[in-house]
Amino acid sequence: MNEYSVHYPLLTIFGLAVLFLGLKALVLGAATAATRGRIKQFINAEDAAWLKGTHVELDSEAVARIGRAHRNDLENLLVFAIAGAIYLAAGASEIAGIIYSGFYVVARLLHTFAYLSGRPLLRRNAYTLGFFVIAVMAVHAAVVLIIN
Amino acid sequence: MNEYSVHYPLLTIFGLAVLFLGLKALVLGAATAATRGRIKQFINAEDAAWLKGTHVELDSEAVARIGRAHRNDLENLLVFAIAGAIYLAAGASEIAGIIYSGFYVVARLLHTFAYLSGRPLLRRNAYTLGFFVIAVMAVHAAVVLIIN
Amino acid sequence: MNEYSVHYPLLTIFGLAVLFLGLKALVLGAATAATRGRIKQFINAEDAAWLKGTHVELDSEAVARIGRAHRNDLENLLVFAIAGAIYLAAGASEIAGIIYSGFYVVARLLHTFAYLSGRPLLRRNAYTLGFFVIAVMAVHAAVVLIIN
Repeated sequence: MNEYSVHYPLLTIFGLAVLFLGLKALVLGAATAATRGRIKQFINAEDAAWLKGTHVELDSEAVARIGRAHRNDLENLLVFAIAGAIYLAAGASEIAGIIYSGFYVVARLLHTFAYLSGRPLLRRNAYTLGFFVIAVMAVHAAVVLIIN
Repeated sequence: MNEYSVHYPLLTIFGLAVLFLGLKALVLGAATAATRGRIKQFINAEDAAWLKGTHVELDSEAVARIGRAHRNDLENLLVFAIAGAIYLAAGASEIAGIIYSGFYVVARLLHTFAYLSGRPLLRRNAYTLGFFVIAVMAVHAAVVLIIN
Repeated sequence: MNEYSVHYPLLTIFGLAVLFLGLKALVLGAATAATRGRIKQFINAEDAAWLKGTHVELDSEAVARIGRAHRNDLENLLVFAIAGAIYLAAGASEIAGIIYSGFYVVARLLHTFAYLSGRPLLRRNAYTLGFFVIAVMAVHAAVVLIIN
């Protein structure tokens, strides 16, 4: 902690949430590469030549599924990170921000679990929960920006 | 507004811009899922089984078009959000930042409208306007970081 | 520099790093569009009609390769930007943050060079270096958030 920083609970909780979810997305990204290596099918011709595998134009289902979970994570994480950063900068309610962050982490953990294990109902519900958490947090931040 | 926050016009305008554009992207993401449900073609086998539809390897054109508009939004929004956050942190001109934010929102609304309605010239011009707004804002922020 | 901003070395270095990498990603995005125009194959039917080219369902290898380099950039840049922003807000070590930023920029420049020139070993090593820089920076930021 240096002279420029002020720690307060929401920064800690929101910070840990986005760091954890960022690392989770990073691991899913690495898992697509690892799965390509395991099944020896590569979308880059030079990888197939180098690692003695097959060059394919489209990823196999196993790789594409992890890739879809990864992409869905990133699409939502970008908007959650933006909403949370503006929420923090606007100085909106700490307790509500902590609750939003907690629900969002749970929603996205369930989403990844549901995607990788093929549970469509849970996946849809987890996605929907995350969607509404972001929407409520963004509207909350916008209201605080406008009225203050 | 708590003791840690300082509201000033550029934070409000830039904040509202990225919150609005983040929600717009979120809605496009949900629209791809809704369109898959409407035409009953799914890229996950478990969704096709659950919702009594067809399992396809590639999204249909209707879904893929919304998906491309969504992806283009996110690709640009990430760089705009980064440029704007550094611009704010650097303390660069408020009035220029407000103008950049306004042009960017208009550019991206036009881009989505042009993509979904199949107007290629307007789509290219809107994309190009957004591209240059980000580039100018990023260079402006970099100059302020370096000279101050 | 206005009354709200405080410049210090890590903000300058991290800010320049993400501005530069954001612009690099933006240029790769524009390069996919330019390459589609050069080889006259378009994934939007209206573009093919407008620019007198062929409508294809999947991008050609030349376009798809730049697209993969672009997407890999954005996937990693989002998590790096989040990790760095939280690292800055937490007030973690300036000198370590500057070193992380430097290594990350080098890693991602090498990754793009390796992807576009078809060097798989260098590409994997550059990706892995960037991956570990983000992971270390994120864990470092999380530790500072928790212990302070």
